[in-house]
Parts: sequence; C-alpha cells; structure tokens
Amino acid sequence: MKRAMKSALKIAIVQFNPVVGDVAGNARRIIDLALEAAEKGADIAVYPELCLIGYSHHDLLDNDYVVSSIEHALAWIHQHVPPHMALVVGTVRRNPSKTGKKLFNSAAFLELDKPAQFVDKMLLPTYDLYDEYRYFEPAKAQSPISFRGTKLGIHICEDMWNLEKYANYLIYERNPLEELIDKGAEILINLSASPFSHGRHDLRTNLIQDICRQYRVPFLMSNQVGANTEMVFDGDSRVHAANGDLLRCAPSFEETVLYWDNTDLTPLEIPTHDRIEDLFIALVCGIREYDKKTGIFNKLLVGLSGGIDSAVTAALAVEAVGAHRVMGITMPSKYSSEGSVTDSMSLADNLGIPCHTIPIEDTIESFKNILEPIFQGTTEGLAEENIQARTRGLTLMAVSNKFNHLVLATGNKSEMAMGYATLYGDMAGGLAVLADVFKVDVYLLATYINQRAGRVLIPASTISKPPSAELRPDQLDQDSLPPYPVLDEILRLYIEERLDVHAICKTLGHPKSFVLGILSSVDRNEYKRKQAAPALRVSKKAFGTGRRIPIVMKLDRLGLETLKQELKIEAHA
Amino acid sequence: MKRAMKSALKIAIVQFNPVVGDVAGNARRIIDLALEAAEKGADIAVYPELCLIGYSHHDLLDNDYVVSSIEHALAWIHQHVPPHMALVVGTVRRNPSKTGKKLFNSAAFLELDKPAQFVDKMLLPTYDLYDEYRYFEPAKAQSPISFRGTKLGIHICEDMWNLEKYANYLIYERNPLEELIDKGAEILINLSASPFSHGRHDLRTNLIQDICRQYRVPFLMSNQVGANTEMVFDGDSRVHAANGDLLRCAPSFEETVLYWDNTDLTPLEIPTHDRIEDLFIALVCGIREYDKKTGIFNKLLVGLSGGIDSAVTAALAVEAVGAHRVMGITMPSKYSSEGSVTDSMSLADNLGIPCHTIPIEDTIESFKNILEPIFQGTTEGLAEENIQARTRGLTLMAVSNKFNHLVLATGNKSEMAMGYATLYGDMAGGLAVLADVFKVDVYLLATYINQRAGRVLIPASTISKPPSAELRPDQLDQDSLPPYPVLDEILRLYIEERLDVHAICKTLGHPKSFVLGILSSVDRNEYKRKQAAPALRVSKKAFGTGRRIPIVMKLDRLGLETLKQELKIEAHA
Repeated sequence: MKRAMKSALKIAIVQFNPVVGDVAGNARRIIDLALEAAEKGADIAVYPELCLIGYSHHDLLDNDYVVSSIEHALAWIHQHVPPHMALVVGTVRRNPSKTGKKLFNSAAFLELDKPAQFVDKMLLPTYDLYDEYRYFEPAKAQSPISFRGTKLGIHICEDMWNLEKYANYLIYERNPLEELIDKGAEILINLSASPFSHGRHDLRTNLIQDICRQYRVPFLMSNQVGANTEMVFDGDSRVHAANGDLLRCAPSFEETVLYWDNTDLTPLEIPTHDRIEDLFIALVCGIREYDKKTGIFNKLLVGLSGGIDSAVTAALAVEAVGAHRVMGITMPSKYSSEGSVTDSMSLADNLGIPCHTIPIEDTIESFKNILEPIFQGTTEGLAEENIQARTRGLTLMAVSNKFNHLVLATGNKSEMAMGYATLYGDMAGGLAVLADVFKVDVYLLATYINQRAGRVLIPASTISKPPSAELRPDQLDQDSLPPYPVLDEILRLYIEERLDVHAICKTLGHPKSFVLGILSSVDRNEYKRKQAAPALRVSKKAFGTGRRIPIVMKLDRLGLETLKQELKIEAHA
Repeated sequence: MKRAMKSALKIAIVQFNPVVGDVAGNARRIIDLALEAAEKGADIAVYPELCLIGYSHHDLLDNDYVVSSIEHALAWIHQHVPPHMALVVGTVRRNPSKTGKKLFNSAAFLELDKPAQFVDKMLLPTYDLYDEYRYFEPAKAQSPISFRGTKLGIHICEDMWNLEKYANYLIYERNPLEELIDKGAEILINLSASPFSHGRHDLRTNLIQDICRQYRVPFLMSNQVGANTEMVFDGDSRVHAANGDLLRCAPSFEETVLYWDNTDLTPLEIPTHDRIEDLFIALVCGIREYDKKTGIFNKLLVGLSGGIDSAVTAALAVEAVGAHRVMGITMPSKYSSEGSVTDSMSLADNLGIPCHTIPIEDTIESFKNILEPIFQGTTEGLAEENIQARTRGLTLMAVSNKFNHLVLATGNKSEMAMGYATLYGDMAGGLAVLADVFKVDVYLLATYINQRAGRVLIPASTISKPPSAELRPDQLDQDSLPPYPVLDEILRLYIEERLDVHAICKTLGHPKSFVLGILSSVDRNEYKRKQAAPALRVSKKAFGTGRRIPIVMKLDRLGLETLKQELKIEAHA
C-alpha cells in the first residue's frame, strides 16, 4: 500500500521578482515569503530558476566574489528555512569536477538541519537572449528527490522544453523529464526564468498539458516575474493535474504566491489572452520595473511630437508610474505642424501630465550658423534634418541631467529596423519602450489604450494623421518607407521568422528588388541599433541581446547569385 | 619502410582576411590565393577557421539562406581547386543528425574530382567574445586525413587550447589533439580565428612548442588576419618543427601566404614583441579595416580637444588611412583653455591634416536660453557640462552626415569604466578607438608615436598638461578621479583579472571604501557603455561583446557583508 504512505502536500509556488545581482536582498525576500507560506501551512515553497542572483545575471557570474556571495546567501537561507518545511530555490552550484564549466544552474532543496540537495539543469539554452552554456555545465543525470514519501521531479526551465512535438528540430539529445519519470517522479516541478513574448501563454499551456498526459503526473511551474532591463517576465506560474487540467494559474506580471493542496483537483478554465492587452501590460511592466529597480529617477520624460509613438509611450509611462511622475516636452521647429504642439498638449491634458514647450528653432539656427563656414555651398538635407532631431535629443538629455529624469526613447521596431531614426536624436534615452513593437501594433496599442481608459487619452488626430518625422517640409514616412502594413510583414518574416529574400517574395508576392532593398536597409543599420537604448523585448526576436549581427559585414546577395549561377553552369557543363 | 612512401609536401599557409558575410567575395579570393599557391608549387593550401563567412559571423548563421550560401560557395570552391592540390578551408557544415545544434564549425578538405572530407571542431569556446555553442554542435570524434601518405591532424582553433599546463581549469573534458595523435597524425594543422590581445604571441609560442614537444610532430597554424568591427586579428600564423623550433612566422596584421616545405627544418629566431608597438599596430589595423570594409566613408573625423586621447586617436587615424583622409575639428567653448585650440592646431600641422575651428559658445548659450524657463532657479552643474559635450558631439555628427565622414570616438578605457564621458557627447562616433586602452597606456602610445615618427607629432604640451574635460572652470580629471596610475591598476584587476574588492585591496593595499567606490562606479555606468560605439578590442577583457553586464542590477556588497556576518554569528551560536 505504497500510496497510503504519502502525506498530502501543500505546495506554495512563489512567482518571485528578483533584483538582478542583489543576492542579499533576494535572500531576505525569499525567507520573508517562506515565512508567509509557512504560516499558511505550506509543506514546500518553490521559487524560480536562479532566483537568488536573478535572470539574467549575464557575466556577473564570471566574478568569483558573486558566486561566493550566492553560496553564502544560500547558506543563510538554509539556516532560516521554516521548520517542517522544504524550500526549492534556484541558485548556482560550483562544479566539483576538475573539467567542464565551473558552475551548474541548480535547484537547491533545503530543509532545516538536513544537508542541502541539488538538482542541476541539463538543457542549457544558448540561443536568442540565452547564453547559459557560457556559464554552466549541463547535468549528467537527473533524479527525483523524495519528500514525505513523494518523489518530486524537480527540474529547471528548458529541461521541460524537449518534447518532440514542440521542436521541429531537437537541439538536445536527452530528455530530462523522461529520466525523472523513469526514476519514479510522481510530480514534475519546474523552476523557470522564462520571459514573455507574444503567444507564450498558449504555447506553455499546450506543452504542459501534453507533458502531463504523456507522463500521467501533475506538473507545477514557478516562473520569475517582473522585468530586468530588456527582459520582461509574465510569470504565468501554474499547476496542472495529471490529466492536463489547469488547477492553479498565477496572475500575469505580478509577484504572488500560489497555493496548491495536491489533493485538490478542481479544474480552472484556461484563461484567454488578448495579444494587444498582453503587449500593453508587458510594456507597462517593463517601464515600471526599470524605474523601480534602478530607483534613481525622479520622473520619466517623453519628448512629445504629436505623433503616435510618443503618445503611446507617454500613456504607457503614465500607466506604469502614475501621471505625477511623467513629464512631456514638445520641441517644435519650423517644420513642425501645428498639430505637433496642439496634439501633444491634448495628450498631456488627457493623461494629466505637464507638457513643456521648448521651441528649438533658434538653437537649430545657431548650429547652422557655426557650421556655415564648413557647410557653405552644400544643399540642405539629411545633415540638417539630423541637427533638428539631435537638438531635441540634447534638450531632453539636458532636462534629464538637470532633474534626474529618465528619458524614454519612443522609436518603434519598424523604424529601428530600417534605420529611420536619428542616432543621438530621437534614439536618445535610457529605455526604448516600443523598439520591439511594429508600427501597425503601435496603432492597435493606441486604440486599445483609449478603449481601456473608456475615454480619449490619445487624441484622434494623433491616430489618424499620416506618420511623419517632420524634419523637412511636407515630409511623410511613406515618402521613404513602404506603407507600414506592407513593411511590417516583410520585417516580421525577416527578423522574427528568419526568412530571406526568396522565401519572403514567395510568401508575400512582392518583387525581389523591393524586398532586397528592405533587407539591405535592415542589415546596413545595425550600427545604429548597436548604440540604441535597451529595448523592452515582447516578441520572439527583438533587436538587442537576442539578435547579434555584425556591424562591419557585407551580405552580398547579388554576388552570391552570380556565384551560384557559375556553379550551375559548371555543374551542367 | 613506411617513411619512404611519403611525398615531401609543400604547404601554403594562407593568413587570410575575410569580409564577414561576403561569402561570394571570400570564395573568389580563396581561389585567387589558391592559384597563386599552385603556381608556387604548393601541394596544400590551408585557410583559417570559418574563412568563408568570416569571424565573427554572429547570428548571420541563424539565417538559413546564409548557410545555404556557404554550401554553394564551398561547392564553387571545390570546382575551382587547382589540379594536384588540396585546399583546407574553414566553413560550416550542416549537422546531419536529427538532434543537436544544426551546424558544425568545420574544415573542408577539398581535392578536385574527389569527395569533400570534413573535420569538425570539438571544443567550442563560449565565453568572452565567443558564442560558438550558440551555433555549433561539438564534434564527437576526431580523425586525421591522409594525403599522399601523410596523416594530417587537421583541427580548429580552440581544439589546440586544452593542454593541461595552459588551463588552470580545463573547460573541456576531451583533448582533440590527443585523439588525432592516437590515430596516427604526423603533422598538426590548426585553422584559427584567434584575435589579438596583449601578450598573445608569447602564449601561442609557448603553447605550440609544448604541443610539438609533447606529441613529437610539427605544428602549423593558419590564422585569420585583419579586423571586423571590434575584433582585431594579428594573424601570427606559423610553422613549428617537431622539436618546437619556429620554422615560419607570418608578419603580424598583414594578409600573406607562408610557404613551408616539410623537409626544411632550419629554425628561425622567435620574434620579440613590444607591447606598445603591438598596441599601436593593432589599433591602426582596427581603424583601417573598419574604414576599408564598410567602404562608405570619405574621411575619418576626430574632434580635437588639445588633450591626449584625441591627439593619439588622430595620429592613429593618419597612420591607418593617410593624412589626406583625416580631418580634425576643434570646438572651443568659454571653458576651453587656449591650449585646446593651439595644441590642436600644432597636432594637425604635425600630422598634415586640416583642423577646422568651430566655436560652440553661441550654440551653448542658445541651449541655455531655450532651457531657461525650465531650468530657472537651478545652479549650473552636470547638465550644463553635458550640453557642451553634446553640442560638440552634435557638431561632429552634422559634419559626418554632411560629408559622409566617420566620427572616431576618442574616450579611453579608464573613462569608459568610470562613466567619465558624456553619452551622445564625447562618446558619439562610429568606432571607439581607445576604449580598450587605459589612460596610462594612452600616454605610452603618445610617446611611442613621436618616437616612431622620429619627430614630434603629438605636441609636448598635450602630453605634459594635466588631463581635463574642460567643461567647467579649472576642471581637472584628478578632481573627480584618482590619479590614473592608481585608478588603472584597480580597473585592470577588476575588469581584466576579475578580482573583487577584497582581493584588490589585498593586492594593492588600498582602503576598502576607496576601492568599493571605484567598483561601484564601474557597475553603475554600464548603461552608458551599452550605448557606446563599438570599441577595438586589444586586451583580454574589453568592454563590448565580450563583457556582458546587466544594466538594471544591484551589486550590494555591503548588504552581502551583513548577510555573511549573520551567517557567521548563527553558525557559531
């Protein structure tokens, strides 16, 4: 009667928001939450992957002092585990072997006055944003940990993602879940630091349900929440029953503790998600967390142009930190439409934020004067347009420096892709809010923001006017770029789906030279993105850490075709 | 009489300079050089690691079109191999297995009308600048390739770096060289893409000599040369005899072909290297290659302050592309010393470059005027200092945009570490020339530059004056920073040797609070470096791709000490 021997278990799933690097602070909060869970009668509290150092730590782990600190903090936590309770804490562990990477990405199983047990991560994502093999040795074996008669299949993040159905190509040869099940695991417990991107919820639901059904055990995931620089974590921690039913689901983007009694099998309805609503909440979270975790800024500052990007950015900022901590500045030049000021003023009124007007025409003239001797005989063009954009950037940075405000950069993903933005100008800022949001989605966000508020926050004229950088008379984005719905789909296929010119033309039916021109623009403008502010990542492939493209390079698609033709001719000769 | 069966071999070691991504162009040049080698009677030509795509390709390899292109180009090369000759070409190869990473980092052994043979890389560096496990599956086995009776131990870069003596810690469990030798390799042939850093030559010499002596075979290395964005490659391709003697050594930083007849055992003297001379040549190479490979700039533009950083940058630029393609601009404000203009003018005269003076005081005043309403009641400080620096940055960028010049950023590693630089101001530019050179070395470079020229290029007053940003009256670097010799050594231990506060204090004898303040400044200023121009890497740990530090983080060393003290108390309680 093995089954009768088991205790019922009450498990606390801690959807934890660590501060990266703040090992001591994270340790204290881990224990605070453990005490709370103990009071509620939890037998186990499960925390996310690497929660002691926070994801992503990046090269902090190259500093031996940081690694020692994690060890000390883990020892401190171990001393403070509430009696009669086990904590499962994401940490690093030194590799005792003389070869291999120096660390394991590990889950510590801690009970008071008993030796710590560890489960190491086997599958180490090393793609996109993830560099885990840079730091960690993969586990050689996976075994469950027994606790009060139940074998707990503890494992870490990627270890759950190697189900054949979900990989059109399996990166890893091993399946840690299978090893755990083979060794008798009766419940799968996943510690994650799995960031948000469009559609991630549904993917997780499907994957976890399939895991449950395949292995016939319940599945529980504790995921990191919050945001750290560019990475935004929705949490989405859950419990699923052995039949796949969803039993518990944490609210997205909030630090919280879920409790589950393993005898409770009452199913919940699977929550549905709206893509634009998710996007809104993710961006708000990203702004709020950047502000809170840096903890040094008085206000968030947005340069308002009357256009949709700055309007949406300002509205997101207000949602993130409150109107009292957001300030707008509008900086008209002689090319600015009347709407650039009036729409900015209406927006600011609607949002309840101050909007200062700083006319920049005199300063632009002053630049032209000092440059006159060297510019004489040339015709006005890009250089003069950029002077305007950079005068605005400089003005915002001056206000930022003076009052300790954070400048939010407002450029969207379409512009960042095409280099349709001025380095040190409209690209200036500490955080790029929309740089992973295509222009068509910026419009959807604007509409959503007004709907959500139940009133007009973003003026109708801002939404309806044709996009313009207003850097020369009658300038429109459409003069330099294809219509955004056309452009964005090409960009999405190139950047997010990694298709190239032939496949894109085949999918969308555009002429080759048209697509080629766009892809070349994307390639050519990597130097601008290299110097861009960090961008909140909300898609599966964002500019930034997760997309590493050389600056000095030549992707000569035409040269390659000639070479291929020579190859064919000779092959048939 | 096995030995008598072997043919003598003439081997061409091609120290090749690929353009990253230019697969077709690289393929054509590979064949051009092969034809040259064939004319000189070579039996084999060996090219560097990944020479078809160029190092570092980064995420270009995520694009399947690029991978196909490499395959086509390799097929084209195969069709063009000169008769009676073998080429060994660094390429990628698709992993035929259904699991694992999709590619191998591979050496193709190509003879006309024979099937291609491949040797895959086993040890994949995934640290510092290197992300190879992001793309590649490690080889499962290593075997020599037989050619005219000789077993060639072909292997790739890192595969030679796992000798116990050279790793205080072995990252990898396997030693591919040993596997090759065990299977009868009679000569070791290494294809590398191994970048320059201080002292790298001597390390390579010692390692290769030890390999030769341990395995009693000759060793031959073909290394990439040139520069790609931040990575600078010295080449340093060589041949060593089985007794370790150096037999051939390619000139540093030059594309060249070395020829070696394997019956020739006449030793060469091992060349000695001067650290500052190497540094000079590496930086010149980095500038020249950035200019040449982007191929879009008319001139290189340097903002001249009269200080040593801009003077050294300008001198390096002149060495790289010639005086006719370098332009200086000096931009005095009311805080500029007289020397800022006169020293800039002398420098420009000495270098033979034009120097335009663009006084920026009126523009600064104009900024102050437009900001007056919002700044009223505040006292002048950092915001106003940054307005000056950014007005200069904007002015340089305007000239850059107008005339298609490349702005060289002049900040040194000490400043970049401490954040003693203005984002979008003096940090503006397309390439940061000195950002991996500590201030003390900038002085040594200045002296070397004058010595090398045999006359004064950098004015004595520029070298002797105390460093100043000249952004407020009587400002000196020493008011904000420790003396550079003190500062630089702390920074070197923290950044390059990865020591932390206790170890640094112990090594250098400084008080803890002093060192703590410096390390905190380094940590805190990551946000500036995130937006910095790419920096030429010349040390073993540069800011940039090789050092990934979170921006939003809190390395709370004091909080950790408290936690550790609690741990001790409780441990002894």
